Amino acid sequence: MPSYKAPVEDVTFILRDVLAIERYSNLAGFADAPPDVMEAVLLEGARLCEEVIAPLNMVGDREGCTRHADGSVTTPSGFKAAYEAYAGGGWMGLSAPVEFGGQGLPMVLNTVMQEFVSSANLAFGMYPGLTQGAIAALIEHGSDEQKRRYLPRMVEGAWTGTMNLTEPHCGTDLGLLKTKAAPNGDGSYAITGTKIFISAGEHDLAENIIHLVLARIEGAPDGTKGISLFVVPKFLVADDGLLGPHNGVSCGSLEHKMGIHGNATCVMNYDGAQGWLVGEANRGLNAMFVMMNEARLAVGIQGLAQSEVAYQNAAAYAKERLQGRALTGAAAPDRPADPIIVHPDVRRNLLLIRSFNEAARALALWAALSSDVAHRSEDAAERQAADDRLGLLTPVVKGVLTDLGFENAVRAQQVLGGHGYIAEWGMEQFVRDARIAMIYEGANGIQAMDLVGRKLGRDGGRAVMAFFGEVEAFCREAGPDEALKPFAEPLAKGLADLQAASMWFMQNAMAKPNNAGAGATEYMHLMGLVALGYMWGRMAKAAIARKREGDGVAARMDAKLTTGRFFMDRMMPETGALLRRIRNGSDSIMALPAEMF
Amino acid sequence: MPSYKAPVEDVTFILRDVLAIERYSNLAGFADAPPDVMEAVLLEGARLCEEVIAPLNMVGDREGCTRHADGSVTTPSGFKAAYEAYAGGGWMGLSAPVEFGGQGLPMVLNTVMQEFVSSANLAFGMYPGLTQGAIAALIEHGSDEQKRRYLPRMVEGAWTGTMNLTEPHCGTDLGLLKTKAAPNGDGSYAITGTKIFISAGEHDLAENIIHLVLARIEGAPDGTKGISLFVVPKFLVADDGLLGPHNGVSCGSLEHKMGIHGNATCVMNYDGAQGWLVGEANRGLNAMFVMMNEARLAVGIQGLAQSEVAYQNAAAYAKERLQGRALTGAAAPDRPADPIIVHPDVRRNLLLIRSFNEAARALALWAALSSDVAHRSEDAAERQAADDRLGLLTPVVKGVLTDLGFENAVRAQQVLGGHGYIAEWGMEQFVRDARIAMIYEGANGIQAMDLVGRKLGRDGGRAVMAFFGEVEAFCREAGPDEALKPFAEPLAKGLADLQAASMWFMQNAMAKPNNAGAGATEYMHLMGLVALGYMWGRMAKAAIARKREGDGVAARMDAKLTTGRFFMDRMMPETGALLRRIRNGSDSIMALPAEMF
Repeated sequence: MPSYKAPVEDVTFILRDVLAIERYSNLAGFADAPPDVMEAVLLEGARLCEEVIAPLNMVGDREGCTRHADGSVTTPSGFKAAYEAYAGGGWMGLSAPVEFGGQGLPMVLNTVMQEFVSSANLAFGMYPGLTQGAIAALIEHGSDEQKRRYLPRMVEGAWTGTMNLTEPHCGTDLGLLKTKAAPNGDGSYAITGTKIFISAGEHDLAENIIHLVLARIEGAPDGTKGISLFVVPKFLVADDGLLGPHNGVSCGSLEHKMGIHGNATCVMNYDGAQGWLVGEANRGLNAMFVMMNEARLAVGIQGLAQSEVAYQNAAAYAKERLQGRALTGAAAPDRPADPIIVHPDVRRNLLLIRSFNEAARALALWAALSSDVAHRSEDAAERQAADDRLGLLTPVVKGVLTDLGFENAVRAQQVLGGHGYIAEWGMEQFVRDARIAMIYEGANGIQAMDLVGRKLGRDGGRAVMAFFGEVEAFCREAGPDEALKPFAEPLAKGLADLQAASMWFMQNAMAKPNNAGAGATEYMHLMGLVALGYMWGRMAKAAIARKREGDGVAARMDAKLTTGRFFMDRMMPETGALLRRIRNGSDSIMALPAEMF
Repeated sequence: MPSYKAPVEDVTFILRDVLAIERYSNLAGFADAPPDVMEAVLLEGARLCEEVIAPLNMVGDREGCTRHADGSVTTPSGFKAAYEAYAGGGWMGLSAPVEFGGQGLPMVLNTVMQEFVSSANLAFGMYPGLTQGAIAALIEHGSDEQKRRYLPRMVEGAWTGTMNLTEPHCGTDLGLLKTKAAPNGDGSYAITGTKIFISAGEHDLAENIIHLVLARIEGAPDGTKGISLFVVPKFLVADDGLLGPHNGVSCGSLEHKMGIHGNATCVMNYDGAQGWLVGEANRGLNAMFVMMNEARLAVGIQGLAQSEVAYQNAAAYAKERLQGRALTGAAAPDRPADPIIVHPDVRRNLLLIRSFNEAARALALWAALSSDVAHRSEDAAERQAADDRLGLLTPVVKGVLTDLGFENAVRAQQVLGGHGYIAEWGMEQFVRDARIAMIYEGANGIQAMDLVGRKLGRDGGRAVMAFFGEVEAFCREAGPDEALKPFAEPLAKGLADLQAASMWFMQNAMAKPNNAGAGATEYMHLMGLVALGYMWGRMAKAAIARKREGDGVAARMDAKLTTGRFFMDRMMPETGALLRRIRNGSDSIMALPAEMF
């Protein structure tokens, strides 16, 4: 059975040495989490994930969820107890406002915990993950009355949340959605329709499930401008907070799917269910986007999380499995063969994963910290800059971390050879589970279009120019430093490729939008490599500084620097190929008539 | 449920127009298969695959194989009848020698049929596939008596074959194997040991199973030089050909695995089973390599096969699924949304798959034709050149076609969004099934080392120099032709990168072998891109010639040319990045101490 150890040391290095989190102690909630408190929280979270949640990962895969004749759903053995431990530990409300029972700690801390939980057990982690998204949407758009009614129980984890967007005929294009909302005359609506692919739509973990549902009010315009958001509790909630009768919503069936078997993926039938409008009528997409942006960061982190746990198990195998001899002669002549970690191709695979993991973690935490600043800073300019950065990075974190996270799970599986294909080793589950993250919360092609079609040009390109400026400044300052040169030079080359690609879009995609569509995925990955490379630059700088402090971390910091150099040697060369593809444009893509496919 | 249509037209184009198979009519068996006969054979094979074998693919995945208390194994519903149809149609012996009951037709035809069967149902196709490998090994290394005893029944499909290499503690490094062979005194041996991951090791499709087993004769040297090959029938075969008692070999358990559920992956226990030496004592690896080389080509084709069937189903979905509008304005204004085939990113995914499939098919058939020439030509120089090419291309076909075949199955799944993750659509099965091909018959890292460590330098680099020369000549001749320039130029650039990488190895890997190991996988993919690009060059040339014939194929040939241009635009740019990675060497790969992983 695979094992998992939460990378608390690496997180601490990123938060303290790379992101210099102490500089943010003026933000609300940050003062409550000085470094020692933060580390204690993380160690406690790590223990829960390692000891309680991770051992259920394979159980969840094998058992899956069961729907009973009455529409109720049972989660796999042990999930309910683990969920109670999670909720009981206060993890659901780690970063939620104190006024609703949360701990008000930085969002960046919750992001770390999301990684740990998702590594331990992705299917399990989706139950609280979706709830946290629903909490965020209600905080932002719910009425005071709705907040009072739902948030405290959700924040304590007694109730969970869902998001209901997809219908059989529409996923990406929500303008086509058909679910109807008819006014009941008492301020509530009767919701009728079918939603599919609803994660955690029905289960036995919580007393109530608060569904956030997109529907069209009778007479509303067609398309996306006629969509409203509703809150539809599974059990109606009386004014005194007590649960009333079962609402007209039920799970019609569970999907059989490639992975995340421990999470119930439901077809949800709304049959005149009583719901209440959240935010303004016909502005539902807007409200849902709050939830989706939170969810997109969380999903990106799921990609990293599967890559991390897959790495740990592949590395352990490579250090133990004896097979063949080193190319340079026996490394363990007293044993029948050398451990396969001696082989360059095995190391290459492991380092591709690891050099991604460490940079991806830094990038995700940088994005999360930007979210904290955007929400909590008292300085308007600082808020705006952080919000710009968050908007720019969100599709990159979602798209790139899940694409590469999946690739890495596949790579880690390869290290085990035939054993990687066998269920009992657990590696193939990581692959199957990681696969969903490239699809849900907006398939990665949609993330690429969000980046290229929306985020690049927004506010005259303010966000992307700021990003370029920041990376440029780093390269300029690092340039004269011999120790940083192996990082600054390839990074500068990557940035130049990214800037050239941006310029190419400006010159070639305005008049011919298919040129943007044709290069969007490559552009997203190009920006991803530069962002990850920039994280390596900052991590290298921090590692060198830490080594100077001489506090017994030299070996760990040397490993950091070696891993970073590998990233520069092996990952950054891709930027040139991506640029060439982008510049080759859309002609050969659009030329083939549809019927010839 | 997914569907499958065998690409007979494309195969015919490759065999006739690209490989000019009619030029080989002097080879044994080729005269029996003029173009019209060949096409009739392929259409008959296509029908079997489409109508009988493909509909069982999902059934096989859901039901899997069942081992009973007595060690017997039942295959999924319908497999036995389909196998009887396959054997009854004479497909097992399509290219086998006439003297053993085969049809003696070109191996290249059988290779086509391997693709069709593997697309239709990979798990099913492994039963005959392994049998054909065992037949090849017995033809090459079996005694006359062994051939007489086993081959006729295997060629007619009444008996199947297996290969037994892997043991719990060794897969890649067969020098460690422990299975023992003790002389019985009557010329036979008692085989004792445990083999794992034995595909088709036990099942109910055939009357008997002929196991080829690697074992160490008592007193033989350690390592690979003490390994011998044995034939071990499940039921002993009397001199008159009748089946005798059950031999001391049995299936101890079935593995639970990621995919290919319809194929029984067995732990095989040999408990003093009676076996007979095949070929010379202690030269078993040598004999097994015949089987493995056949199998490696077949496994490469499995990668292509999954990519092909995944493409077909993704393309069908993309033409039907309505979602969003084209970036250039509504393409189907009378419908609620446009089919997603209008989106550049969807087309990009589909064309990445298709432009690979068509070139990979040509490459695999070129390799198979080389095998025919190597085995059947009466001209020694021609035989040697073909054998050189086959040896060089085998690891490339195995490694590159399975790596990219899997990637493409993942891409095709992505086109379906959430539906791609749901079992009933069948796309996720293609991904799970395709994954094994990167692992078995030598994990792809081993293929890369075979290419770089063995095939490149063999005979003073004769094979690779001939390959370079052939591609160079094509580029030179095509250069002045305007219509071929979009193919010849990027191909020449790719070839230059490949030659530079070869040169770098010559200068940097002799003294430092880890530099070869560190770049081997990249080199294999670099050669793969050049080989696929070369196939596109030849296909483009053939397509232009066909258009001039004006026989109503213009639209199809234009589609070919567009698909080829896409390959040059989008796949070939990778060669530069691969070269840069190779040149960055092994320093950052080898620097990290093993315990720091």
